[in-house]
Amino acid sequence: MLRTDGRNDDVLRDIRITRGYQQWPAGSVLIEFGNTRVLCAASVTEGVPRWRSGSGLGWVTAEYAMLPSATHTRGDRESVKGRVGGRTHEISRLIGRSLRACIDLAALGENTIVIDCDVIQADGGTRTAAITGAYVALADAVTWLGAAGRLADPQPLSCAVSAVSVGVVDGRVRLDLPYEEDSRAEVDMNVVATDAGTLIEIQGTGEGATFARSTLDRMLDVALAGCAELNRLQAEALAAPYPGVLPEPKGKRR
Amino acid sequence: MLRTDGRNDDVLRDIRITRGYQQWPAGSVLIEFGNTRVLCAASVTEGVPRWRSGSGLGWVTAEYAMLPSATHTRGDRESVKGRVGGRTHEISRLIGRSLRACIDLAALGENTIVIDCDVIQADGGTRTAAITGAYVALADAVTWLGAAGRLADPQPLSCAVSAVSVGVVDGRVRLDLPYEEDSRAEVDMNVVATDAGTLIEIQGTGEGATFARSTLDRMLDVALAGCAELNRLQAEALAAPYPGVLPEPKGKRR
Amino acid sequence: MLRTDGRNDDVLRDIRITRGYQQWPAGSVLIEFGNTRVLCAASVTEGVPRWRSGSGLGWVTAEYAMLPSATHTRGDRESVKGRVGGRTHEISRLIGRSLRACIDLAALGENTIVIDCDVIQADGGTRTAAITGAYVALADAVTWLGAAGRLADPQPLSCAVSAVSVGVVDGRVRLDLPYEEDSRAEVDMNVVATDAGTLIEIQGTGEGATFARSTLDRMLDVALAGCAELNRLQAEALAAPYPGVLPEPKGKRR
Amino acid sequence: MLRTDGRNDDVLRDIRITRGYQQWPAGSVLIEFGNTRVLCAASVTEGVPRWRSGSGLGWVTAEYAMLPSATHTRGDRESVKGRVGGRTHEISRLIGRSLRACIDLAALGENTIVIDCDVIQADGGTRTAAITGAYVALADAVTWLGAAGRLADPQPLSCAVSAVSVGVVDGRVRLDLPYEEDSRAEVDMNVVATDAGTLIEIQGTGEGATFARSTLDRMLDVALAGCAELNRLQAEALAAPYPGVLPEPKGKRR
Amino acid sequence: MLRTDGRNDDVLRDIRITRGYQQWPAGSVLIEFGNTRVLCAASVTEGVPRWRSGSGLGWVTAEYAMLPSATHTRGDRESVKGRVGGRTHEISRLIGRSLRACIDLAALGENTIVIDCDVIQADGGTRTAAITGAYVALADAVTWLGAAGRLADPQPLSCAVSAVSVGVVDGRVRLDLPYEEDSRAEVDMNVVATDAGTLIEIQGTGEGATFARSTLDRMLDVALAGCAELNRLQAEALAAPYPGVLPEPKGKRR
Amino acid sequence: MLRTDGRNDDVLRDIRITRGYQQWPAGSVLIEFGNTRVLCAASVTEGVPRWRSGSGLGWVTAEYAMLPSATHTRGDRESVKGRVGGRTHEISRLIGRSLRACIDLAALGENTIVIDCDVIQADGGTRTAAITGAYVALADAVTWLGAAGRLADPQPLSCAVSAVSVGVVDGRVRLDLPYEEDSRAEVDMNVVATDAGTLIEIQGTGEGATFARSTLDRMLDVALAGCAELNRLQAEALAAPYPGVLPEPKGKRR
Repeated sequence: MLRTDGRNDDVLRDIRITRGYQQWPAGSVLIEFGNTRVLCAASVTEGVPRWRSGSGLGWVTAEYAMLPSATHTRGDRESVKGRVGGRTHEISRLIGRSLRACIDLAALGENTIVIDCDVIQADGGTRTAAITGAYVALADAVTWLGAAGRLADPQPLSCAVSAVSVGVVDGRVRLDLPYEEDSRAEVDMNVVATDAGTLIEIQGTGEGATFARSTLDRMLDVALAGCAELNRLQAEALAAPYPGVLPEPKGKRR
Repeated sequence: MLRTDGRNDDVLRDIRITRGYQQWPAGSVLIEFGNTRVLCAASVTEGVPRWRSGSGLGWVTAEYAMLPSATHTRGDRESVKGRVGGRTHEISRLIGRSLRACIDLAALGENTIVIDCDVIQADGGTRTAAITGAYVALADAVTWLGAAGRLADPQPLSCAVSAVSVGVVDGRVRLDLPYEEDSRAEVDMNVVATDAGTLIEIQGTGEGATFARSTLDRMLDVALAGCAELNRLQAEALAAPYPGVLPEPKGKRR
Repeated sequence: MLRTDGRNDDVLRDIRITRGYQQWPAGSVLIEFGNTRVLCAASVTEGVPRWRSGSGLGWVTAEYAMLPSATHTRGDRESVKGRVGGRTHEISRLIGRSLRACIDLAALGENTIVIDCDVIQADGGTRTAAITGAYVALADAVTWLGAAGRLADPQPLSCAVSAVSVGVVDGRVRLDLPYEEDSRAEVDMNVVATDAGTLIEIQGTGEGATFARSTLDRMLDVALAGCAELNRLQAEALAAPYPGVLPEPKGKRR
Repeated sequence: MLRTDGRNDDVLRDIRITRGYQQWPAGSVLIEFGNTRVLCAASVTEGVPRWRSGSGLGWVTAEYAMLPSATHTRGDRESVKGRVGGRTHEISRLIGRSLRACIDLAALGENTIVIDCDVIQADGGTRTAAITGAYVALADAVTWLGAAGRLADPQPLSCAVSAVSVGVVDGRVRLDLPYEEDSRAEVDMNVVATDAGTLIEIQGTGEGATFARSTLDRMLDVALAGCAELNRLQAEALAAPYPGVLPEPKGKRR
Repeated sequence: MLRTDGRNDDVLRDIRITRGYQQWPAGSVLIEFGNTRVLCAASVTEGVPRWRSGSGLGWVTAEYAMLPSATHTRGDRESVKGRVGGRTHEISRLIGRSLRACIDLAALGENTIVIDCDVIQADGGTRTAAITGAYVALADAVTWLGAAGRLADPQPLSCAVSAVSVGVVDGRVRLDLPYEEDSRAEVDMNVVATDAGTLIEIQGTGEGATFARSTLDRMLDVALAGCAELNRLQAEALAAPYPGVLPEPKGKRR
Repeated sequence: MLRTDGRNDDVLRDIRITRGYQQWPAGSVLIEFGNTRVLCAASVTEGVPRWRSGSGLGWVTAEYAMLPSATHTRGDRESVKGRVGGRTHEISRLIGRSLRACIDLAALGENTIVIDCDVIQADGGTRTAAITGAYVALADAVTWLGAAGRLADPQPLSCAVSAVSVGVVDGRVRLDLPYEEDSRAEVDMNVVATDAGTLIEIQGTGEGATFARSTLDRMLDVALAGCAELNRLQAEALAAPYPGVLPEPKGKRR
C-alpha cells in the first residue's frame, strides 16, 4: 500500500539543499523536504552573551519562526501578537540543543552563532528539516570562522546532525510525514541523530492514543535509517566549496 | 555503588500523595518525590473554550509554574517579567497532552478542567511529579463531576497516567534523578506511561553528549518499571474516599 | 450575636505559624489565619539593586501573588496574562513598606532580602496574613545573615510588625474578616502596627458607603488589640531555635 | 514657625478650579493646588463594560497619569515602557473608588463615565487634587447627562467628595504638603471625605518611621477641616452655569 | 560619472518578478530589485474586521517584516523583543494605504486580503520593492476571488501601483538607491504612483540636511519615470496566466 | 467660497505661542493652531544614550502623545493598552527627525534633549503644531544649556523649523486643515520647512484618491508660504526674554 505521494513507508521525500541562499550570513541554506521549505541562516558575532562572558567558551543558539504565509491558512504574526508562542519556543530550544551536541564550544572560541530557521512553506516536518538544514549552515559558518582565523581550535564540529519525523499513520510506521499524514497520525516522533548513529534527542508523542514499546522500537529503526540517508545528503552538499567569499584571516566580524 | 541518597539505581525516591490539600478546587493533590513538592489542583468550569464550543467535547489543559522560592537560588517571577518562559510553556503543554491521552473528552461533556501544577519545592523531576500528581487531581475532579451529574458518560478515564525521569549519571542508568544528579546527567529522559504499560510520551535528550540505541533501551526498561510502581501508589491513594464534600446532582459549578 | 464561625466580634481566627516550611530560602514561613494560608519566603542575595549600589544600605522588598487555585473560582495566572494586576502591585508595595519600617537598612549591610508571599488558599485577609508571616520569615533571614557574619550591625530589627483587617459588617465592627464577611462589609480597613503599639500603615475604605469618624476610632481600637495578640504569637513562634542549618561565618550566599 | 511658602500648618495652598477647560469631554476641569496642576476630564459613553451589562447600573472609573514633563526630573512615559506602574494603578483605583462612593449607579442608568486625571505639573498632592477636581468634572458630566435625558433618575449624586494630604514634617502635623515637604515627611496620609463630614478613604503611611495613635487623631482633625474648605470651593465653582453647550434631550452620545 | 554598480543616475536596478512563489496564498510573488528580495504573499479570508462588518465593503491591509538574516548585521527578531518597531509599523501602514488607493473596496465585497511583505534580503529600497510586488500579489488574489465567484463586482482594481526610491547622493539625484548609496544619501524620497501617472504618496526626508524646492522637482521627475518603467514590468509579469490552480465558482475560502 | 471657519484657502488658523507654560522643563511651550492645543516640553539631561556615548555628539529626540480626553470621542490610553500605536510612533519619529535637521549635534555637546509633545486638545494638524511648538521649546532649552555653560559651541541651531498641513478639500487646495476638513480631504500633506525656505520633510498621501503632479506643486506653494508665516510668529515669540530663571554657568542638570 503506497502513500498519497507514492512513497514507500520508509522512504524520505525529495530532499534539496541549497547553500549560499543569502549574501550576508556566514552560512545560509535553503532546505526542502518535499514541499516543506526552511531557510536556515547562521550569523556570526564576536563575543558571547553576558552570562557566558569570560568563560572562553562560544555559544550556539537558534530561533525558529514561520512566515504567516507559509501555512495553508494564514497564521498570525508573533511580533504583532507581542509574544512568541509555546510551540515556537519549544522548537527553537530543540534546534539549539541539537546543534550544541555536535560542536565543541571551547574550540569555537568566544564567538556566538545564531541560527535563524524561517519556514517559507510548511508541509509537515518543519522542525526536522530545520535541524538538518541548520547543521549545514553551521558547518559553513564554522568554515567562515576558520578562514577568518577566529576559531580557538581548527575543527570544532565533532559529528554531523540530522533529524527526521516518523509516525504511525493508518496503523503503519511511516517516515518523514507530510502535513496530510502528520495531521492524522496516531503517534508522532522526531528523532535527532548523529552520523555516528548515536542519538541526540527523541521526542515521541501519542496525543489521543498510546503506543506499545514494540511500536517505539520499530519507529526508531526507521528513523535512524532516515537520518543516515540525510547525513549522506548533507555530506554531498558540503563536498562543494564554500558558496561565497571567505574572509582573510583576522577578517572583520560578519 | 549506591547513590548519594542511598538508593539503588532503579529505585524511586519516597513518594507521598496527599489528596484534598486545598478546599476550593474539585481536585487538589500535594505530591512529593523526595524533596520535590508539587501542588496539583484541578478546577472545573462549565463550558469549553470558544474554539471548541458546540462540539460536545470537553477540554483538559494544564498550567505549570514554579514559586520563586522553590529553587536553590530564587527565580524571577514570570508575572513580573511579563511573560511565560519557554521551559514553562513546554512543560505545561506536556502535562496537558499527557492527561488528554487518558480521558475521553466526549464522555467528559462540555466541561473544562484546568490543572494547575505549582512547584512548592524543586529538587529534580518536577515535571514528572506534576504529571503523576495531576492524574490523581484529575481523577478527583472527574468524581466530583460525576456526583454533580455533569458527565456525558459515567467513566471518562480510560487509564491512569504516571511519569518518571531516568538518566545516565556517572555512566550508569538511574531512575528518578534529584537535582544533584540531574544537573550533571549525560543523558536525561522523561517517560509518560499508562497503567496498561503503553507509552504516552518520551523525551530523551543528550545535551553535550549523544547516546547509543542500547542505552535508550535500558533507560526505557527502568523508566517503565518506575511508572508501574507509581501507578500502584496512585491507585492506593485513590482507594480512599473523595476527600471533601461531593456536590448534589445538578450541583452548581465549582 | 455570634459570627458565622462562632467568634466574638473582636476575636482573631485560629492563627498557626510554621517556620522552616521550605528548605532553600533563609526564612520560610507558612502562616494560617483560619482557612487563609500564605507561604512567606525570605530569600537573601548579596548586593543591592543598581540604583542603591554603593550606598552601604541594604534593601527589603516583597512580592505578593495568589495561586490560581487559591480562590473559590479559579483565577487567571498573571504570568499568562502577561502583567501584574493593580491589586497585586498594591499589596506587594504595602508589604515591602511595612517591613522596611522595622528594619535598619544600614545595619543590614549591602544585602537584599526579597520576601515572596504566595497565597496557597484565600479566605479573606490575605494581605494582613502575608505581612504578619513575612515578618517572621524576615526575622529568620536576619538570623541567617547574622550567623553568616554578613550583617553590618548585629541587630537590624527595631520592632516586630503585624497586621490585621477590621471592618463594619451587619453594622458591627468586627476583627479579622473571612471572605464571607469581607465580601459584604460596608467598611474595610487594614492596620499594620508594631509591637510598641505604634502604627505603620492604615488603609480604610468604604466602597459604596461612607463612615463616621467615631466608627474609625472604634475600628482602630479593635485592630490594635488584634495586632498586639499577633505580636504575641509571632514572639512565641520565634522563641524556638532557627528551623534549619545556619551557615558558618562568611558562608556562601543563599 | 511658618512653612517655606509662608502658610500656617493647617492652611491649604491656593486652590483654583477652572471648569470647561477642554471642548470635547462632558466635564473638563483644571484644578490647581498651588503649583500642582491636574486636568480632570469626564467622558461619557453609552452602555457599560461587558461584565456589568444588563444590570441597569452605570459605571464610573478613573485613569490617573502624569505627563513626563510634569516632574522636576523628566519621567519615562508608561506607554513607552509598555506598562502602567504600580503607583499609577493604585491612584487610579483610589480615585475611582472615591467617586463611586458619592454616586448612585442605578440613578446613573447604563452609562459609563471615565474620568481622566492627567497631571500637567506635579508639586505634591497630585492624587488629592485629582480627586477634588474629578468630583467637579463628574458633576458637570452628570448635568450633561441630565440635559440629554439619559439619567435613570434626576439626581444621582448623593454628596460631594474632596481629598487632601496631611503629614508630619519637622515633627509638626501639616496640611496639603508640597513636594518639598512631602519628600521628607515622616508620616504621610491622604484623606477622602464627603461634604457631610464622613470618611470615604484614609491611607496613612510611615515609611521609615512609625506614628502614635494620638498623631493619627491630630492628622484626621486637620485633614477633615481641609476637606470641608475644599467642599466650599467646589460648591462655589459649581454655582456658575455649565461652561459649555448642553445637549438637547435624547441628544447623541458625547 | 557612473554609480558603483555601473548604472546611470536615472536607471533602475535589475527587476525580477516571480509569481506563484508559494503554494498556499492566493497570490505569492517574489520581487527582486537588484539584491533586495521581498516575498509578497496575498492571503484571502472571507469576512472583514469587526469594525467594518456589515458595511458591504472589503478590506486590504499589509504587514511588512524583515528576516533577522536579511541584513548585513543580524537584526533582532521583533517577536522576541515582544513588539513591532516604529519603522516596521510605518512601512506596513504605507503599503496598506498605497494598495487601498487602487482598489474599489465595494467591488471587493466583504473579503479581506492581507498582504505579507517579508524581506528575504535587504539592500536598500525594501519598502518600494514591497509595494511594487504587493500590487502583483494583490492582482493575483483578485483573479483568484473572481474565479471563485466571490467578488461583488468583476473588476475592483482601478489602476496599477508601483513605488521607487530616489535620493541625492554625492550631490546628484539618483534613482533606486542600493544600501551603499542610501546610507549616505543627503535626501531620501519614496514615491508611490499609479500607471496613470498620478501620485498616491510621496515621502521625502533630509535627515541632517535640507533641500531646495528645485531639487524636489528634479527628484519627482526621475521617480515618476522609474514608476512608469516598473508599471511596464508589472504588466509584463501579469500577462502570463495565473500561476496556480484557480478555484471553482463558490469555491471554499483559501 | 469661504471655509466653515471663515478663512480663505491659504490662511492659517489663529496661532498662539505661550512660552514658560510649565516650571520644571528647560523649555515648555503651549502652542495653539485654532482649537488644536499641544504642550511641547524640552527636558535636558546630561549624557547621551549608550549607543552614542563617547562620540562627542549630543542627541535630540521627541515623544508625541495624545491625552485620552483630547479627541471628540475619548481615546484609549496607550499605557493601558501596553503599547504605543503605529501612528504615535510615526509622528514621534517625524518630530525628532525634523528638529535634528536644524541643530548641530556636535555643538550641542554630550547632552540629550527630549521633547515631549502632548496633545491637550485635538482639532486637526496636531503633528504640525507639535513640530512648530517643539522648535520654540528646543530654542529655550538651548538657551538654558548655554547659560549653564554646557554647550560645546555657542550657537548649535542653524535654522528655525516650522510645519503645516495642506490638503485638497472640496476640490480646493487649502492650508492648515481643522478636523472637519481633514477628515474628508482627498489629499493630505504635511510640509516641514526651514526659515531659509528649504524643505526638511514632505509627506503627501491620497487615501482613496490619487493626485496629479500639478496639484502637488500647488500644495507646496501654499504650504511653504504658511511655513514662512509660522517662522515669523516663532521669531516674534522668541524675541521676548527666557521665561524663567536661567542657571548659573556649570549649573546642575535640570
